[in-house]
Amino acid sequence: MRDFISVKDVISIEEMLTSAKSIKVNPYEDSGIGKNKTMVLLFFNSSLRTRLSTQKAALNLGMHVIPMNLSEGWGLEFDDGTVMNMDKAEHVREAAAVISQYADIIGIRTFAGLKDRELDYADRIIRQFAACASVPIVNLESAILHPLQSFTDLFTIESYRKKKRPKVVLTWAPHPRALPQAVANSFLEWMQQTDYELVVTHPEGYELAETFTAGCTIEYDQRKAFADADFIYAKNWSSYQEYGKILSTDSDWMVTAEKMTLTNNAHFMHCLPVRRNVVVADAVIDSDQSLVIEQAGNRAVIAQAVLKKILENLKG
Amino acid sequence: MRDFISVKDVISIEEMLTSAKSIKVNPYEDSGIGKNKTMVLLFFNSSLRTRLSTQKAALNLGMHVIPMNLSEGWGLEFDDGTVMNMDKAEHVREAAAVISQYADIIGIRTFAGLKDRELDYADRIIRQFAACASVPIVNLESAILHPLQSFTDLFTIESYRKKKRPKVVLTWAPHPRALPQAVANSFLEWMQQTDYELVVTHPEGYELAETFTAGCTIEYDQRKAFADADFIYAKNWSSYQEYGKILSTDSDWMVTAEKMTLTNNAHFMHCLPVRRNVVVADAVIDSDQSLVIEQAGNRAVIAQAVLKKILENLKG
Amino acid sequence: MRDFISVKDVISIEEMLTSAKSIKVNPYEDSGIGKNKTMVLLFFNSSLRTRLSTQKAALNLGMHVIPMNLSEGWGLEFDDGTVMNMDKAEHVREAAAVISQYADIIGIRTFAGLKDRELDYADRIIRQFAACASVPIVNLESAILHPLQSFTDLFTIESYRKKKRPKVVLTWAPHPRALPQAVANSFLEWMQQTDYELVVTHPEGYELAETFTAGCTIEYDQRKAFADADFIYAKNWSSYQEYGKILSTDSDWMVTAEKMTLTNNAHFMHCLPVRRNVVVADAVIDSDQSLVIEQAGNRAVIAQAVLKKILENLKG
Repeated sequence: MRDFISVKDVISIEEMLTSAKSIKVNPYEDSGIGKNKTMVLLFFNSSLRTRLSTQKAALNLGMHVIPMNLSEGWGLEFDDGTVMNMDKAEHVREAAAVISQYADIIGIRTFAGLKDRELDYADRIIRQFAACASVPIVNLESAILHPLQSFTDLFTIESYRKKKRPKVVLTWAPHPRALPQAVANSFLEWMQQTDYELVVTHPEGYELAETFTAGCTIEYDQRKAFADADFIYAKNWSSYQEYGKILSTDSDWMVTAEKMTLTNNAHFMHCLPVRRNVVVADAVIDSDQSLVIEQAGNRAVIAQAVLKKILENLKG
Repeated sequence: MRDFISVKDVISIEEMLTSAKSIKVNPYEDSGIGKNKTMVLLFFNSSLRTRLSTQKAALNLGMHVIPMNLSEGWGLEFDDGTVMNMDKAEHVREAAAVISQYADIIGIRTFAGLKDRELDYADRIIRQFAACASVPIVNLESAILHPLQSFTDLFTIESYRKKKRPKVVLTWAPHPRALPQAVANSFLEWMQQTDYELVVTHPEGYELAETFTAGCTIEYDQRKAFADADFIYAKNWSSYQEYGKILSTDSDWMVTAEKMTLTNNAHFMHCLPVRRNVVVADAVIDSDQSLVIEQAGNRAVIAQAVLKKILENLKG
Repeated sequence: MRDFISVKDVISIEEMLTSAKSIKVNPYEDSGIGKNKTMVLLFFNSSLRTRLSTQKAALNLGMHVIPMNLSEGWGLEFDDGTVMNMDKAEHVREAAAVISQYADIIGIRTFAGLKDRELDYADRIIRQFAACASVPIVNLESAILHPLQSFTDLFTIESYRKKKRPKVVLTWAPHPRALPQAVANSFLEWMQQTDYELVVTHPEGYELAETFTAGCTIEYDQRKAFADADFIYAKNWSSYQEYGKILSTDSDWMVTAEKMTLTNNAHFMHCLPVRRNVVVADAVIDSDQSLVIEQAGNRAVIAQAVLKKILENLKG
């Protein structure tokens, strides 16, 4: 593993889950491994959990961390051969190569524009940074993937798994704004590395890209999907078919305490931030079955496991 | 002391003043105490002195510091039970609990809105963070209090006190913008822990909240107030009665060299930033009696004393 | 050397080039020298290379680094004696003195406004900070100078110099936006410390200030200038004569592969960011003769040499 862009970059998930378990118990046991190493975090979009958890993880490993906000005015050109006489001040070729001069690892956060599906699904900001950088790239959520989140989700489910093959349900939930599909896509990608019973439920029109749903059970009736579930993972996303559109804000899709009674006393999960009483009712997120805070805490654990692996490979 | 939100959180001011004196002489003597501890600083409003001095203090103790600007677009919901389908993306319950996963101490900066007095005086951003966080909260200036500033002011006055019971005058001064009452409120709160002769002077209509002025001498004639004063502390605030309003910009209230002659060769103090020749004349702030730069420097000393105490309690 | 504002602050360029060579080989050999020292970086304007390279340099020396963006709304007053009742919230006298309380070194980034030539060429933001601060000031690019860049350029040329007196050409190149003259000014200032054959080429009307060009060969015919050159340094700047104006965007001035054939197999240099196919053709910047990435990497080396020297003087 040089880069950590998608699940495909991980050689052994099992080995990394074991590493994460150990990190959770003793987060400072590898504090020498990152000595004199610097991680630069580039934020094209805002971030709270990812920013703090990645910084914490890198600091625990003894690294230096330099976060930079690029949201304002740093127009990057991604096309080759263009005459750059418009609003783009720098080409990704120089930007990525130059930052590689000062960083040992580069983290990148960039959301989908939700206007041009082909463009978003090429995931080109992170892909081109990886192509032009001479150091490892870590995906802090890209246009279509959020692997640090989904690896955390897997780790969290593993911690609470009580049977060999738990039923895990990814349920769409309403939201007032159009959100990317990144968390849902990645969740499916990582869950399919397991032997869980995986069900996706959403209104018609909210089908995710086939690359991610191939092999999944899709159930349009949310209540049927919830039956005997061990984990309910709620998340909103905008339509992939009618790209970036909000097709429904139907509050019938909110996760409620009554619906949770259909499950096998399921744990409730969400990547946060969450709109209370829109995505999930207070009674569910505030219940003992809610894992959302520990799940968020696990973000730092997984980030540390990923950075540790990358640092080991740098040295090796 | 878990949190440091107001003077009421401090068990022994005297003990902490002694600690601060020692820190001022040798700021690096406790550089091991913060090892593997992280302080997250949340800025809902801009900050220069508080930001730099708190970072310096935490670094001197060996902590990691992660500052975050939240001024743009991170709408937090503070009301319980609401349907969050408007502009607020996250509830303080999750925000505070999640940041507590990555931080050992959280510092919060948030100004008064100056529109709704009841709302501001509930000081709910910092209070709700404290209620929902699982780690100590440090007030980096809230809607109505600025205890790091006022503790610094007390420490500075103590350093220059020449008699048992100095006369300390808090004088209102003009300013072109409507400012919060936080610095003035806190100043009175901390001064009332001492046996100083405390006088507040301001134009009519600028009376501060009774919670803070109870027991203070209020003198509407600034020149009378200045008579034989040992310390002149200047600060503008907007009206508490006609909440958030500017009732006067009368330049007669500026602190001038001529007025300083009425005092007992008083020291001049201000929390900065200060409008020269509006709040105070150049001749006063540039005089040998001005303590403003040392006062600002003491901010790091007091922040370090506060963080040290919190860290000691974390371990205890 | 207390401050590093221009080439005039350096006592021995030769000694510092030797120091830089050693730092490039072993960047962590002085990691104890900055212990308990803090550098505050003030950005009045955005920065990528300077920000990252200076942070990396300071971290390599064991310093703490606190960057601050001042671009939004922190109006500083620079005139003395004014009544500050308008938009300026703080005087540079207090700002510089206060930040000196928390920092051992202050770095400042501030661009030319390009509206008032006299004002810009007084370079007063950095000059007044230096006058009012009690700690060393480092120029991270000021209105008219960019010495960290130009020192890096000199270091890079020295690394690739094959003859005693190479021909170094500074060529103006087109650009869609009006840019400051800082990089070009500083480049000439540093090059004139050497015995190189120095030629400046630009369209008529783009003459730089005489303070910087005195003694330089100016050649209005770019192709003649390129003849037998060993180093081609491209940079756009707006007019000094018709201050801040764009007089030409003539693409005939772009550096092309064909023009490079006129040179002595010259190395291509640029400070970045660069507009591809406007300032320079892809075929040149992507060629083996292009030094732009290594040049950017050298920024951290030179910043470290400068900070090391300042730290040594602090202790001495």
